[in-house]
Amino acid sequence: MSLIEIVISNEALGSLLIEELDVVGDVFKKHLHSSDDDVNDLCTHIERYRGKMLRPTLVILSSLAATGSYSRENLDDRHRVLAAVVEMIHMATLVHDDILDESDVRRGGATVNTLYGNDVAVMLGDYLISKSFHLCSTLGDPSINMALGEVTNTLCEGEVIQLQNKNDLDMKQDVYLDIVGRKTGSLIGACCRLGAVLGGGDDEHCEALRLFGIEMGIAFQIIDDVLDLMGKTEVTGKSVGRDLDLGKLTLPLIKLRDGLNSRDRDEFDRIVKSRDRSELVEQLDSSGALDQTMESARKIVATAQSRLEILPAGPARELLLELSRGVLTRHS
Amino acid sequence: MSLIEIVISNEALGSLLIEELDVVGDVFKKHLHSSDDDVNDLCTHIERYRGKMLRPTLVILSSLAATGSYSRENLDDRHRVLAAVVEMIHMATLVHDDILDESDVRRGGATVNTLYGNDVAVMLGDYLISKSFHLCSTLGDPSINMALGEVTNTLCEGEVIQLQNKNDLDMKQDVYLDIVGRKTGSLIGACCRLGAVLGGGDDEHCEALRLFGIEMGIAFQIIDDVLDLMGKTEVTGKSVGRDLDLGKLTLPLIKLRDGLNSRDRDEFDRIVKSRDRSELVEQLDSSGALDQTMESARKIVATAQSRLEILPAGPARELLLELSRGVLTRHS
Repeated sequence: MSLIEIVISNEALGSLLIEELDVVGDVFKKHLHSSDDDVNDLCTHIERYRGKMLRPTLVILSSLAATGSYSRENLDDRHRVLAAVVEMIHMATLVHDDILDESDVRRGGATVNTLYGNDVAVMLGDYLISKSFHLCSTLGDPSINMALGEVTNTLCEGEVIQLQNKNDLDMKQDVYLDIVGRKTGSLIGACCRLGAVLGGGDDEHCEALRLFGIEMGIAFQIIDDVLDLMGKTEVTGKSVGRDLDLGKLTLPLIKLRDGLNSRDRDEFDRIVKSRDRSELVEQLDSSGALDQTMESARKIVATAQSRLEILPAGPARELLLELSRGVLTRHS
Repeated sequence: MSLIEIVISNEALGSLLIEELDVVGDVFKKHLHSSDDDVNDLCTHIERYRGKMLRPTLVILSSLAATGSYSRENLDDRHRVLAAVVEMIHMATLVHDDILDESDVRRGGATVNTLYGNDVAVMLGDYLISKSFHLCSTLGDPSINMALGEVTNTLCEGEVIQLQNKNDLDMKQDVYLDIVGRKTGSLIGACCRLGAVLGGGDDEHCEALRLFGIEMGIAFQIIDDVLDLMGKTEVTGKSVGRDLDLGKLTLPLIKLRDGLNSRDRDEFDRIVKSRDRSELVEQLDSSGALDQTMESARKIVATAQSRLEILPAGPARELLLELSRGVLTRHS
């Protein structure tokens, strides 16, 4: 099951969440509206990028989980605005990521850079990030602006570190985990924490949800990187093999490399440099590196799940746990 | 004289402004600092982009002009933070603009995209914009975040509209003025207005300074576009001819085109399409289109200057008037 299917099929909260996400979608669309038609045409295209709505879902669920509530009365317009803001930030990163990755396909459709060129994609990403900060300001709470500003700083740092480590076949696992923590963990951690803050959670619960989010985000990114190596565009809905083509070493390859003796290491370098994905897929399978990678992701998810033990029991906490398990089994 | 030379040589305010801009530079540098060395190395390069510091200067001057003050006691850390924020926003647009314009040279040095590639330039621009919003949040005043969010929305819209009108040789003068108003006028207008707000100016004075800033910004951009057509890299310190090479019609060419009969118009289209800048320079001179463009800029500056009549007389107002005149005579 995909993550959104897990949400939809949840008996206690599925319909509440779907309705909330609908409202979030409306806030998103309304705020993206421009006085210029050209800009609006581009934003229509952007709708396609809105797929899983994982981050808005986590804002709302964390808000409910922080106090053990599962009633709509505990949600208000601030949650919906914050949920739209984090989705906008996420989409801005997708649009700019697709430039960096020279990707053609995203969510089964052509990317902005492919359709309109890199220059339009640069500006559209900027427009999204600007709109997200602007929408965030409407909450009237400088601490939320500040927190999300910190997250986007961290996110950009993660991307820069990743770019600077391109083609470094000696890159250590720690560096990889630092990059994905910044790139993916930081925003998801903020979704969970800020959702909890808006929901009236106490400091300890907000902090637990922040850590849960960071770790779930890291596991999510590890699986993303596995799918980029092992997956098929027809299934994932986006270009695959991009990391390898761009010389970005991800966890499966790091695990494979670290298990090699020095003679096999030369051969590994040759295969990576020749971008021979099918050969690597075979080795990842036969060497057990893929299993080790999945085991790492599982451990990170287990740690994430343990964070939630201090939260009040209830369907929101249950669904968060279920989603964190779903991160490991998703195929798209 | 360049704009910064006008500031330095001002008897009443020169030394105050230079000292203030030094502090702004420190705030800027300190806030851009990252925990990662790679990011810091890139930010060092960015220092080169900080040239005229026009926008910080306008924040401080407008703050003084709004109440007729010219004493340091009317300035505090909020002014310096705001000044650093607007310079960061401006520099983010420069880094991303250089990608859009495929420019090699900026302020006499290699651009980020040339030195490190478009991917790094995309992320560095994102980092700057993120840092600017984050620094802005430290002011603790959501209305300033909101105002600058609106400005960056408008700025991105201006860029998108410009991109969508590339290679449109029929583009009307109104569309051009709309683009430069959004791209350049909006941020300079906000610098003047928000500086005035922080300085304690009343609504009427803040609004007068906003309009002054927008119009000064439009005139500034018109001259920028003239210099891109007529200037030399050795003098302007940046790549020239980029607008023409990228099919961006600017005011001098629009004036030239609008003065042609239909037969000469075909010839104009041919010359523009062949990117024959030297031929265009000759025609801009001989047809009077260049003079008409300068006359348009002069009129806009005159309107801008008239906005300041309601402000209390004093050296800050005088220097704003002098800077607006300087916009017309600058060569870099």
